[in-house]
Amino acid sequence: MSSFTGNHILSVNQFDRDAIDLVFSVAECMEPYAKRQKRTTVLDGAILGNLFFEPSTRTRVSFGTAFNLLGGEVRETTGMANSALAKGESLYDTARVLSGYSDIIAMRHPAAGSVAEFAEGSRVPVINGGDGANEHPTQALLDLFTIKRELQYNQKSIDGLHIAMIGDLRYGRTVHSLSKLLCLFKNVRFTLISPTELAMPDYILDTIENAGHSLHVTDQLEGNMDADICYQTRIQEERFPSQDEANKYRGKFRLNQAIYTRHFQSKTVIMHPLPRDSRTEANELDNDLNLNPNLAIFRQTDNGVLVRMALFALTLGVENLVSQYEKDVIWYSNKS
Amino acid sequence: MSSFTGNHILSVNQFDRDAIDLVFSVAECMEPYAKRQKRTTVLDGAILGNLFFEPSTRTRVSFGTAFNLLGGEVRETTGMANSALAKGESLYDTARVLSGYSDIIAMRHPAAGSVAEFAEGSRVPVINGGDGANEHPTQALLDLFTIKRELQYNQKSIDGLHIAMIGDLRYGRTVHSLSKLLCLFKNVRFTLISPTELAMPDYILDTIENAGHSLHVTDQLEGNMDADICYQTRIQEERFPSQDEANKYRGKFRLNQAIYTRHFQSKTVIMHPLPRDSRTEANELDNDLNLNPNLAIFRQTDNGVLVRMALFALTLGVENLVSQYEKDVIWYSNKS
Amino acid sequence: MSSFTGNHILSVNQFDRDAIDLVFSVAECMEPYAKRQKRTTVLDGAILGNLFFEPSTRTRVSFGTAFNLLGGEVRETTGMANSALAKGESLYDTARVLSGYSDIIAMRHPAAGSVAEFAEGSRVPVINGGDGANEHPTQALLDLFTIKRELQYNQKSIDGLHIAMIGDLRYGRTVHSLSKLLCLFKNVRFTLISPTELAMPDYILDTIENAGHSLHVTDQLEGNMDADICYQTRIQEERFPSQDEANKYRGKFRLNQAIYTRHFQSKTVIMHPLPRDSRTEANELDNDLNLNPNLAIFRQTDNGVLVRMALFALTLGVENLVSQYEKDVIWYSNKS
Repeated sequence: MSSFTGNHILSVNQFDRDAIDLVFSVAECMEPYAKRQKRTTVLDGAILGNLFFEPSTRTRVSFGTAFNLLGGEVRETTGMANSALAKGESLYDTARVLSGYSDIIAMRHPAAGSVAEFAEGSRVPVINGGDGANEHPTQALLDLFTIKRELQYNQKSIDGLHIAMIGDLRYGRTVHSLSKLLCLFKNVRFTLISPTELAMPDYILDTIENAGHSLHVTDQLEGNMDADICYQTRIQEERFPSQDEANKYRGKFRLNQAIYTRHFQSKTVIMHPLPRDSRTEANELDNDLNLNPNLAIFRQTDNGVLVRMALFALTLGVENLVSQYEKDVIWYSNKS
Repeated sequence: MSSFTGNHILSVNQFDRDAIDLVFSVAECMEPYAKRQKRTTVLDGAILGNLFFEPSTRTRVSFGTAFNLLGGEVRETTGMANSALAKGESLYDTARVLSGYSDIIAMRHPAAGSVAEFAEGSRVPVINGGDGANEHPTQALLDLFTIKRELQYNQKSIDGLHIAMIGDLRYGRTVHSLSKLLCLFKNVRFTLISPTELAMPDYILDTIENAGHSLHVTDQLEGNMDADICYQTRIQEERFPSQDEANKYRGKFRLNQAIYTRHFQSKTVIMHPLPRDSRTEANELDNDLNLNPNLAIFRQTDNGVLVRMALFALTLGVENLVSQYEKDVIWYSNKS
Repeated sequence: MSSFTGNHILSVNQFDRDAIDLVFSVAECMEPYAKRQKRTTVLDGAILGNLFFEPSTRTRVSFGTAFNLLGGEVRETTGMANSALAKGESLYDTARVLSGYSDIIAMRHPAAGSVAEFAEGSRVPVINGGDGANEHPTQALLDLFTIKRELQYNQKSIDGLHIAMIGDLRYGRTVHSLSKLLCLFKNVRFTLISPTELAMPDYILDTIENAGHSLHVTDQLEGNMDADICYQTRIQEERFPSQDEANKYRGKFRLNQAIYTRHFQSKTVIMHPLPRDSRTEANELDNDLNLNPNLAIFRQTDNGVLVRMALFALTLGVENLVSQYEKDVIWYSNKS
């Protein structure tokens, strides 16, 4: 049993270095199961309420898969239009009722603060799977876990990291949460590259500076950067006050192999919260990077399963029992 | 094996006292599994077809959870818009096909009579999860089971019960079905409180009187009532012929702590079929009652899982095998 | 391990006689599990990604059930409107991500070629569950398997078969795929009955003739046919250039008991890809045939489960382990 057992996971603000270290060490132990070298039935008989009141295929399936990989069952709901919430039911009532149907809940909802409100009424632990513009802590954790693992290949650690964040840093929830978590580490260098209109909010900048980290803010990709990580996010043109304003920046935050070669060192790892817009007009992250071994975007989503497995195991207090309930995988797999 | 084995559950009219007693005794045995003191794999390998041709998060998840708690798997469908039914397929055909995909079916459909029509074509037992204005037998059974349990705490039984039903008694399917089931017991006192326009239908009143029960009909909460149960339902203002008519009654069927104290004895149990509208303008069941220990609305939904587990076990003939397939719960739970 | 292990199933063009024989022999072995005489846990712990980017209740549930019957878990997605695909994500990206969440994928998508494109990015085997007007190989296989089994009752084989295909042979994807598979057999007689506007495409006619089979094309049901199989498909009147044109044919491709008796021998098996339109104006396959023992339409859908179980077992390389992981069915079933 850890401090996670029986508790909600609602915000990255809950995490200190020790908590992160614990989650990541458990996540590492999950890899053989996710890679199908072995399987575990530690949560056989447990039920996840996978409550997605806002659609999100990848996050929903990732949570469900993580629970299945631990041996548990999943009951799901997708969309809110016809649910009782739409008939004026309070989140408190919804939580009282639905928490009677499962052992743990993963929840997404479009309204900021809704998941925490729901958790107040819940009789089982709730994991925030995204509450609008507010929080998406498992995304931040999987991003950080990916950074840790990618740096490890290069014999580096998060302490001393240089990260470049590019694109929409104002509305991009993921870069806010990730920045907060990075502030728990030592001597991080942040290079923040965005249009002025879409710059990182001041309170995040303050957090970074108050924690004593190095900060460089700019509105374009400059010269040759020695970043370890390039974290790219989507710019939606409708965010700008006018199309003229949008045109001013078009293509400046795009990344393709040529731009990567020009601006980054050869080991810089490319991350993105996904989905990426792959249409030619998207100006985002080009498909010609798919052959670049430093493109870590699909390792990110794979890592999401490990992190969610770890959070489930910790919250349900079985993190030390997982290998006791191990079995062989008898079907064909090329994942290992 | 009981008379339930292999048979459909379509209507409360199927139930006599013996059948109810059997369902409730099996439901009581399910509590350790629902409370996570133990788990059972008695239906490991069985498949529930959870066919919701009309959305209903809570009922759908409750059925699915009940089946999972017995160890079974759930295949689901939600919504009808795109299904074959919309292309002119008959319920008979749908039933022939889908009953090939599961061991038992729970079904909800907006059209009255549709579930019985489906059951004609089904090759596996069908449990009615609500067919429009017609029937929702598992709701009636869980309401009655809740009454039984709540009275037990006060050393009372359903025989001799005094129940007050409040609100929309005309369109409220649940109060009709519950009244029918209560008529199988002895010396029940019904106090029916509703606007004249939304009064209990005559055929239910006749059933109550023909069964020799006591009946009092009124259009407002009166004086001090010695009811054991206060069963509250929602009034939808659009049911009234005019807004003037609706205004006449506004707030008269609302229940909050002050109204409760004024009209009911201190042990009166408050029930509601849920969801309740918690918006301030709803005039329904106020949140200040949440602290009242007699508010049984969330015990009702918990009891729904027990009753549905019992119906699955009985219909699939495993009611006496459940404890043979018992295992320990190894994860953290605070439900027990 | 067979040639199926670890490979995608995208098209009927992948199949030769040997492959078909293998699938069908494995499918036969699946019957005791589908009929609930026994169950198997051979895929206990495996996860199917049941990705339906276009709704299809029966096909989706059939795939899910087939996987459950082998002991596996199912994670699902239905509909595309809100998915990342709608935000410009490429099928390649979707596949990279979602294939990290399961051991095998069944996928339906409205765009022709989409499933093959998805399979390029997938890290696990993909089974095509229908990609628009293009392919639906598991339907073709279950149709062929049904023909084989129905003929077996009459001591016949597919070699030498006489099949009548009736209705919309132009847009009916199922008759195209089935024809291709039948061309792998010997001495098949095809009688193709359709309005001229909805005739079988020339490339299929060429395939049939090049394979040396007998071919008769007509625009109406004629005289007395000695067909072994009558494969009926729906005609949608909006396919015709005008309502006048449609009226010309109305009722000519309808099948009811009287028409059946007039035109077919008493043992002719009636098939249909389902759903059938059972509304009186449908002019399709009348309900009075439901009592005709030669109506095989529901045996077809049952066979679909067997064929899909076989494809899962073969693709995951467990076809020889199924019976090793056998258990008793302890609940009531009247399927066997």
